[in-house]
Formats: sequence, structure tokens, C-alpha cells
Amino acid sequence: MQYTNYDLQDTIVALATPPGVGAIGVIRLSGKAAIEIANRVFYGKDLTKQASHTIHLGTVRSDKQQIIDEVLMSLFVAPKSYTKENVVEVSCHGSSYIIQQLIQLFIEKGARMAQPGEFTLRAFLNGQMDLSQAEAVADLIASNSASAHALAMQQMRGGFSDEIQKLRQELLDFASLIELELDFSEEDVEFADRKELKALVVKIQSLIKSLIDSFQLGNVIKKGVNTVIAGRPNAGKSTLLNALLQEERAIVSDIAGTTRDTIEEVLNIQGIEFRLIDTAGIRDAQDQIEAVGVQKTMEKVQSSAILVYVFDAMKLSAEEVQKDLEALQEPNQIIVLVPNKMDLNPYLRPDEYVSDLVPAKNIVTASALNKQNIQHLKETLYQTVITEQLNLDNPIVSNTRHLAALQNAHHSLTEVLNGIDMEITSDFVAMDIRRALYFLGEIVGEVSTDDLLGNIFSNFCIGK
Amino acid sequence: MQYTNYDLQDTIVALATPPGVGAIGVIRLSGKAAIEIANRVFYGKDLTKQASHTIHLGTVRSDKQQIIDEVLMSLFVAPKSYTKENVVEVSCHGSSYIIQQLIQLFIEKGARMAQPGEFTLRAFLNGQMDLSQAEAVADLIASNSASAHALAMQQMRGGFSDEIQKLRQELLDFASLIELELDFSEEDVEFADRKELKALVVKIQSLIKSLIDSFQLGNVIKKGVNTVIAGRPNAGKSTLLNALLQEERAIVSDIAGTTRDTIEEVLNIQGIEFRLIDTAGIRDAQDQIEAVGVQKTMEKVQSSAILVYVFDAMKLSAEEVQKDLEALQEPNQIIVLVPNKMDLNPYLRPDEYVSDLVPAKNIVTASALNKQNIQHLKETLYQTVITEQLNLDNPIVSNTRHLAALQNAHHSLTEVLNGIDMEITSDFVAMDIRRALYFLGEIVGEVSTDDLLGNIFSNFCIGK
Repeated sequence: MQYTNYDLQDTIVALATPPGVGAIGVIRLSGKAAIEIANRVFYGKDLTKQASHTIHLGTVRSDKQQIIDEVLMSLFVAPKSYTKENVVEVSCHGSSYIIQQLIQLFIEKGARMAQPGEFTLRAFLNGQMDLSQAEAVADLIASNSASAHALAMQQMRGGFSDEIQKLRQELLDFASLIELELDFSEEDVEFADRKELKALVVKIQSLIKSLIDSFQLGNVIKKGVNTVIAGRPNAGKSTLLNALLQEERAIVSDIAGTTRDTIEEVLNIQGIEFRLIDTAGIRDAQDQIEAVGVQKTMEKVQSSAILVYVFDAMKLSAEEVQKDLEALQEPNQIIVLVPNKMDLNPYLRPDEYVSDLVPAKNIVTASALNKQNIQHLKETLYQTVITEQLNLDNPIVSNTRHLAALQNAHHSLTEVLNGIDMEITSDFVAMDIRRALYFLGEIVGEVSTDDLLGNIFSNFCIGK
Repeated sequence: MQYTNYDLQDTIVALATPPGVGAIGVIRLSGKAAIEIANRVFYGKDLTKQASHTIHLGTVRSDKQQIIDEVLMSLFVAPKSYTKENVVEVSCHGSSYIIQQLIQLFIEKGARMAQPGEFTLRAFLNGQMDLSQAEAVADLIASNSASAHALAMQQMRGGFSDEIQKLRQELLDFASLIELELDFSEEDVEFADRKELKALVVKIQSLIKSLIDSFQLGNVIKKGVNTVIAGRPNAGKSTLLNALLQEERAIVSDIAGTTRDTIEEVLNIQGIEFRLIDTAGIRDAQDQIEAVGVQKTMEKVQSSAILVYVFDAMKLSAEEVQKDLEALQEPNQIIVLVPNKMDLNPYLRPDEYVSDLVPAKNIVTASALNKQNIQHLKETLYQTVITEQLNLDNPIVSNTRHLAALQNAHHSLTEVLNGIDMEITSDFVAMDIRRALYFLGEIVGEVSTDDLLGNIFSNFCIGK
């Protein structure tokens, strides 16, 4: 495989830690000359003579012998590094000025600024990891719930790509056998047992199918679930929101930078992120549904996977609730119904509200005020997206690029099966198999173009 | 010296890199149990058996064997570390979620969250650096110009504190001799030669004086110079601003995070930061000076050390300029006068505008449009704050705490001199000397209270 656009000969440099002021910053150099370049400006031990995985204290000085900073140089000698190249990590004081000066100096001495994701790209090109593992690195960095983190970690450490690799190899062997038949096409021989081939294709399709099916879950895990809470005034919506959030808030407050800059509140239920969306705007639902123009709020309702409708069970009849729901609900949206203020009416009957829109299991009578049934409501929210116990030991696809490749592979494999059943000639069967192989190869990076790589790695941050 | 509030027995942990998403994050542990705590959750080599300054790849796992991250552990065995304690730097993927999980795990295993500046405080308490060096670490991190950086670096590497230490020791010896005289007070002996003592005090005072004098410069270097550009409409103010900024802008744009979030533009002249302040509000100076209520803009003019007044030399008479200046200028503000549009009138005479407010050397005729004399203007701005060639080899004080201590020491030393001249008794002389010693000791941290330390280190970021 040739990656003409990517020059692995030069040495790249970038800030690896987030920008901004901190105690320390880490600048990363990778490439053949990484250690040599670092050594040219380093005053301390001769870095070119030190062992891999050692750390050296010294100063970095400009050509005029001015001390830019006191630094720690961490050495990773090829191939024992993230990129499999020589790598130096320069740990300096966390000042933007110093970081800028150091990077400029390294560039003067022969390094060039790294592109986004270029360190991980090199790790991939040098065979340190396959493409799906490389993609998982970006997911891992972006993960902010336990399950998103576990998912990215699973994928980074091999995940389902091992299995795909294995099945792909078996399929590849069949393709070779069938292509061999082409050389003997005059003689009408069959090197590849069609029954065995069919069994293999069915087996692969079954794996692919389960991976495709896992996408919805994977996507939920990775991106969270938009959940809008709506209701008439004084339905107890805010009280419910607070009751839901109460325990969770403290957990994220320890480390700065975890909070999102939207006004949404994130509720983490058993590792799944529910983004509870503030819908103050539709609080007077009845009026505003009739009115046009509350576009922005309605867009939020529209973009939500789950609609939690709260109402005062002492005031609203089942018919009125049904009317509100019909006006509010979007196609394919899951409704969770919360007849509130059960503290005032302990004989509240949930089944009274069952309708075409809302099955019984999605109705949770509650008292937001007394925090009654809040745990049950959380359980219900979780069950609407995760029907079984979440089991991250099974491979889960969370990447839309992988989903597309899997769907394409599945389709090509169906063509293979059809071809075998219709007893078409070997060359056509081989072609369909090759196509399926191509799509499977795309996932792990066996097959990839510069465009594809550029696309994937440009989403990385610089320094990774 | 006892620092009762600071427990050096426990192991502290904090994120050392800036918060936010990046390729990597570094968590720092320091204390007796640092390596042991890291080892409890690390799957890889036994960290307690590894040499100092080595790096080890492995995974960190929770009690349930769940992998939290693949990390690099960098070991620094006491006393060969920043704090002189055992230090572990954990380099992990730069996700807030992972960082939070790791820190929580280290806390569960026996570390506690570090206070702001506590790593550097420990470095100070363990004798790695004196107080003025520790303070320089914070300055170094905050530095964003060449000279501010050089100043902090000089101070961090010893700076003037070596010299103060030396002179303080000499003075201390005299104090002991004088105090010895007290034991023999009946006998009227003089162990301390008053002439020598006087010479030493004069010498110390002279050093202190030059340090006090350097403060204004040090402050300018550290904090930059607020410079407001004002003028009537169409005076060429914006064009001048752009001409001044043109070459400088690109330099800071390489690294994210260096730009300030104010609307001020920073012009770096020979390593000094001039913060050019946008004064669109007073562009119609004549009108607005008469009007009340442009409070905000006028506050900016008031808080500026330099007022650059630009005017169209083809239109405004020297009298009109003088009138504008009288209305605008604040007490102690330096005025730089720019008769603009010299391209239209090459015979423009700067001396015509000389007045009580503006000496000839502060008048620069220019053409903002043709970029004529812009370099000369920069030179002039620089000269208004730095009268001689900036020489950072001489010690410069930039810290207000040091300034106060120096002023107090200077005052006490004057008392000593007066005492000697007036031939007061030894006990009073000794008291004055002790007081001077106390203030000098404050700078380097020989004398310090928990309050003082708390004050200094609470200004640090966490993780340093």
C-alpha cells in the first residue's frame, strides 16, 4: 500500500497537551531525527547516547545561549514508541510563550509542525495499530461517560477488528481459490467448495449483521441520548429535573473542562449519558403548540430521541394528556409519561394513560417533590435505549464510517450468496467477494486511500 | 522554621497539564508513597523496583480489573525530583473523563488532592529552591514576552537572591557580635567595629536602592505597558494601529491560547509588551470631552501609562493640539505626539508642537498610510519606558512583595545608620539590624510564616 501524500522521512513536532496555562506542557517530536534535533538545543547529557524510556533534566537554549526553559526530555527509541519512530517528549513549564519558543526552535533545527492526528497516523502507517484502533484513540480522548470510555478502550485494544481480520483472511483464501479456477476455466474445475464458501459467507454475514445491529447502541453510548422534558406550567417539570440530577451533579465538578458549554444538563444512568434539555419555552404547551414561531424550542423537541412528558395527575385527564402528546410527539420518538404528584393521590392508576403512543412500561407515576419513584424513572429511561443488560464484552460499532463499510460488505456478501445459488461463473463470484473484502478491509485499514486517511485524521487534535 | 499547617507526610496528586481536551494529560503524584500508590493500580512492571528517571508503559485498572487507560509512568525517586520527594508523572490520554477517573483512583489508593502551588511549596520546604525562586515559577508560567520570560528565568535560577543571601549573612555576623556586646554591657566593650558595620550597611543599602529602583522597569516587563491611542476622527488612528501591529501579529498566532480575551492588541517592542488600547469611543475627542458619561473609555485612558495622540498635521494647529492634550492627559501620563500625514507635507516641523506637556523627543512625525517613521515611533515608545539599553544581566525586581520587603529593609538600615551616628546603645542597634535582617529574609524565605506561604502559593495553579 502506498501513501504518497505522507512523508514519513521528516520529523514532526507539536504541543501534545491542551493549550492554555498549566503547570507543565508537553511537546512531542517524532521521526528519524527526533532525538538528534532535541539534542542540538539541549544542555545536559548527550541524548543520542541515552537508553530508551529514560528521562533527562537540562536546559534548552537558543543559538545565543539564552535559556528558554529548564525541561525534562523523555526518550523513546524506535520502535519502542507510540509512533514506532524515535520520539522525544519535552516536558516544559506550561507557559504559551515558552511552548511557542521551543516549538519554533525545534522547527529551526529541522522538525516541521505536525498535522492534526499525524502522530497517530504514523502509528497506523508504521503498523502500530490498525485503522479502527487509531480511530478509537480520538473517541477515547472525547469520551466522557463510563460506557463511551469502555467502548473506545475496547476498540483501541483490538475490539471487533481481530475477528473481522480473521474472517476476512478466510474469505481471502476462498477468493484466491476461485480466482485460480479462472486460470483453468476451460476445464470446468472447482477448487473452492461452494458449500463451504456459502457457510463461511453466512457466518460472516451473521457477524456483520450483529455488528450493524449494535450501531444504534454504540451511537447512543458514544453520543448520549437527547431527552427533552416537557409539560404544562406547574406540572413539576423543574422539580423533576432537579430530582433526576441531584446525585449526579457532584461527580463531574472535580475537574475543570468536563462541563459542556451548552445549557443542557447531563444525567448519567448506568454509564449512558442522557442530555436533559431545558424546554422552558414550551412550558405553556397548550398555547405554544397552537402558536407558530417557537421554532427554536420545537427544534430541540424534534432532535430528541426521548420525550419525557410530565403532568399534574390531579388536574389533567387521560384525554387531555393524549391530546398534548399527539401535538408534541415526533415520529420515532420514545415517549415516557410521568403522572406527577402521586403524593397527593396514592391511588393513581398508570394504566389509565396507556395508549397507542405510550405502552404501560413507559409510564412512571412519581412525586418529583418527595422524590418518589425517581429511581424507577431512571430505570425506565435506561430501558428505553438499552433493552438488555449492557454488555460491553460483545463487540459494538459506534463509528458511522464502520457502519457504512459493514452495510456495503453485507450487501456484497448477499450478492455472493445469490451468485452461488444461481451458479454464475467464477469470475463474477470472485468479483463480489473482492468487493466484500474491500469493504471489510476499509474498517481495519487494510484498504485505504489518502483521502480516507486525510478524512479520518483531520478530525484529531494536533499533537495526537 | 516550623510550617505547622503543611503536612509533608502525605502524598498529593493533581493534574499538571491545562484542563481541556488534548492528545495527552499528565497527572502528578508527589510524596513518600507516590510510587507505591501508582504501583497499586498499574499493570506492567513493578514500579517500586525501577530506577529513577525511567518510563514504563502499562495499563491502569480499577479494582474490578477494568482498564481505565493505557499510560506511561515516569518515575522520579527522591531526592532527584522537582519536590525532592518521590514523584510519579502519569501520562494518559487527554480526556477529562479518564483524568477524573485516574485522579479518583489515586485518591482511593491513598493520595489526596493537592492545593494550588503545593508541589512548588514542597520544593521550597524541602530546600530545592528559595522563596523568590518558587515565586518565579509562577511568573515563568505566566510570562508571555521575551523579557518577562528572561526576567522570571533569571529569578528562578537564583537571580538577586544569591547576593541578598550573602550580604544578609555578613549583616547577621555583625548582629551576633553586637549582641555579644550586650552580655558584656557593664564593661563597655565593642566587638563590632562601628566603621566596618557602617560601611557594610551603606553597601547593602546601595544594593537595595538599585533593586528598588529596578522595580518600575521590572513591573513594566512583567505586566506590559497600557498604551492608549487617541485622536480626532480621520486623524489616521486605525491606520497607525495597523501599521504598528503589522509585523507582530503573525508571531503569536501559531499557538492557540496565547491570545488574550480582551479587545486590546499587544505590540511587542524589543521584548516589552505594549497593550495598545482601542479607543473608538473617544475618536470624536472634542465632543466627548465636553460631554460627560463616556466613563468606560475615559477609564481606559486614565489607566494607561502612555497616551499616543495622533492628529492630521494638515488640519490641526499647534494650539488646537495643545488644547486636546490638556483635556485628555492624566497626571503622570507620558504623551507621545504623532503629527500624521507627513506624506502630504514633507516640511512638517515637529518642534512646532513642543510644549510643557510634550518634550521634543516624544514627537514623531509620521505617515501611517505609507508606514513612514513607524519604526521610529516604536523606538520612541520603547525609550519612554526603558531609557537605557535593557540589560537583564542586572538584577531586576518585579514582585510587589519583594518591593515592600526591600523598602522595609532599607528603612530599617537607615535607622541602623542613624543609631550608629547618634551612638545609641548596642541593644537598639541590634534591634534595628534584626529588623532589617527579617525583611531581607522574607524575600528569600529564610523568614516566613504560614500566612505568607499560603498567600504566595495560593496564586499558583493546581498541579504546580
